[in-house]
Parts: sequence; structure tokens; C-alpha cells
Amino acid sequence: MKLLFNYNWAVREEWYEWCGVVPLEELLKVRTGGVGGILHTLFHIIDVEWSWIRILQGKPDFQEGFKDYQSLERVKELDALFKKDVEEFVLSWEDGWENNLFQELREDGTMETLTWGEVLRHTVAHEIHHIGQLSVWSREIGKKPVSANFIGKGLTNN
Amino acid sequence: MKLLFNYNWAVREEWYEWCGVVPLEELLKVRTGGVGGILHTLFHIIDVEWSWIRILQGKPDFQEGFKDYQSLERVKELDALFKKDVEEFVLSWEDGWENNLFQELREDGTMETLTWGEVLRHTVAHEIHHIGQLSVWSREIGKKPVSANFIGKGLTNN
Repeated sequence: MKLLFNYNWAVREEWYEWCGVVPLEELLKVRTGGVGGILHTLFHIIDVEWSWIRILQGKPDFQEGFKDYQSLERVKELDALFKKDVEEFVLSWEDGWENNLFQELREDGTMETLTWGEVLRHTVAHEIHHIGQLSVWSREIGKKPVSANFIGKGLTNN
Repeated sequence: MKLLFNYNWAVREEWYEWCGVVPLEELLKVRTGGVGGILHTLFHIIDVEWSWIRILQGKPDFQEGFKDYQSLERVKELDALFKKDVEEFVLSWEDGWENNLFQELREDGTMETLTWGEVLRHTVAHEIHHIGQLSVWSREIGKKPVSANFIGKGLTNN
């Protein structure tokens, strides 16, 4: 589980570098699919990752919108702030937490019971999925996307 | 690990259903990003998943190209064929296999040592990333993509 979070964090850092040499208007441009833009996607990934961890911990969630995060620097600041909390939780993850239960109210008013393990996998898959969207938009603006390879990012010590 | 493979297989089935009501020309159309098309992406995901498992087992790999799989039915047949092998391996996965070593020859001629755990995570992330690309192309042709939510697919028994 930790390895997949490490992978996502490493990929995110590479996307920030990628963003650093792309004009802001391209990062903010509204595009087809996902949440509709490159920087907005990175904001959304950070927001969702942190929110799920907060929810599992029974702590208050973040309620601000992307309109207040319209630059790479602002998004990176938010990431640095949120990552402290997420990292603390994920790096202290114990196998025994896998089946801890969490109850969520569905939109239709019924209750859904989730395990913590499920929530963490959801969070991991959520980021990878959205990064896939960035890779298409990257090609649309004529730039090579960040590699999505898990292998070769130095995530384990072989 | 098994849960993430189950997630990918469930998402893939939903994409086959999605493909079933989309004209073949849209499925075959060359698009920007990834491997360049919807059906080609599904073929590529199946091919890569199976190939990695075969490589870990020291068995021969698949060498055919997408040109021989130009219909949804052909791709689904290949998936059914390959999935037997992948499922057998993944469902028999034991925690102790995590750190089994595998050596791969890099393109530059040097050797890379990978763990089996790394290879399986690479395979999982590979599919999720490519499915993210499908979601953008889906919106481009005006169709709602398959949900990428891990939660709500009934993957665990709560």
C-alpha cells in the first residue's frame, strides 16, 4: 500500500516539473474529460487523497474550490500542506487497519460500509486514473507526458 | 494485490460493455495519446498484463500485433484466453512472493533487478493509467465513461 502511495507522490512531483515549463494558460485551459483541465486535475487529486484520509480519521474536510488555486505555485503549496497529513497516516499504516470499517452516507440516503483498505485502494486508483487523463492532454499540446511506469522510479531497494 | 487485479478486471468488463454500443470505427479510430485508440488500448492492457505474468514464470511471451485484433469480439476472446493464466497466478499469490527477484535486460544493455511485488504493482498501475486515457476519449465522442471508482464495485464483502 505504501509503495503505491510513494509511486503516486513520485509521479505527481514529475508532473509538477512538467507543468513548470508549460504556459499557465495551457495548465488552466478547460479540456474534454475528467475534471476538465491539467492544473484542476492535480488540485482534485490532492484534495481527494487528503479528504479520504481525513474522513477515515474523523477529522474535518477541506471545502475550498479550485478558483482559489489558479497557479502551479498555489497547487504545490496545497500539496505540501496536505501531504504532511497523508504521509503521516500512510507511513504509519499497519496491516491490521485493512479491515477497519467506515460507514458512509450514500447520496440516496442509505449507508455504505467500507473497509479502510478499500478506501486506500480507491484513493490510489483515483490518482492513477486521473494521471492517465493528463497524459492524453499532454500529447494534445505536443508534449511528452511523464512516464507512468512503476518500474524504474527507484521505489524499492533492489 | 488480488483486490487491485479484481478491480482492473471488473473495470475492463464494464469497458467491453461500453464498447458494445459504440460503432467499431470509433473503437478503431486513431486518437491522440497513449497507444492511440480505444480498442488498441484494451488490447495493449491485456497483452502487457499477461506478458509480465509470463515473464515472471519464465514462460514464452505473446508476439502478435493489434492488426490481428480489429474487433471487440477478437479482443474479448484474447482477454478470456489470457485471463485464465493471469488469474491462476494472481489468485495463488502469496505474501512471500513479494520479494522474489527477477532480472531484466534494459535497452542500454545493463541489468535491472526487480521484485515480483514491483512487477505486479507496475501491471496494476499500467492498466489504471490507460483506462484514464479511455475516459477522455469517451467524452470526446460524447459518451459517459465507465466509473473508475474502486468503491461501489462490490470487490469486498462488507
